[in-house]
Amino acid sequence: MDDDSVEGVVMTNREGAPILTNVSVTGATNYGRALHKFGLLSQMYVKELNPTEEIMIIRIRTRKNEIMVAPDKEFSIVVIQHARARRKVKEKREKNK
Amino acid sequence: MDDDSVEGVVMTNREGAPILTNVSVTGATNYGRALHKFGLLSQMYVKELNPTEEIMIIRIRTRKNEIMVAPDKEFSIVVIQHARARRKVKEKREKNK
Repeated sequence: MDDDSVEGVVMTNREGAPILTNVSVTGATNYGRALHKFGLLSQMYVKELNPTEEIMIIRIRTRKNEIMVAPDKEFSIVVIQHARARRKVKEKREKNK
Repeated sequence: MDDDSVEGVVMTNREGAPILTNVSVTGATNYGRALHKFGLLSQMYVKELNPTEEIMIIRIRTRKNEIMVAPDKEFSIVVIQHARARRKVKEKREKNK
């Protein structure tokens, strides 16, 4: 993972168990299970509001991190990125102007 | 609301009841209650993973819309925007180059 703003990536199976990751097994298991469950729950909420809708990605911006969850029936993908990455992206944009 | 890509805005109190909106009362009540509950649940998931963390905003990208939820103890703010807004933003950026 050459982008150092990415703290971790976890791919889980349909039960939320990690099948691919670049973090520790414990971290991947904790984040994988919790956010896989969160993804399924989010799909439920969105379908409750509009049965024809389907979630493609959820981005949770917290004080320190940005957590992205792509929930799918067969698997989930979770990416945890440092929130300061936002400043770096801005710096890169300003440099390329 | 002069930005026509915004489909609706709902501000709810701490129970999820709408206190400010630009959509119908039924729509505001449905979206407000469901997404207020969703915001509280999301806070719980994030705190389970890292007790020192706090959610600032959740963005749910679905096929048709982008739903933003800013969960707070006292109130929640929900914004529903058409997903096609993404293409308009790109068009605007290209025009301003």
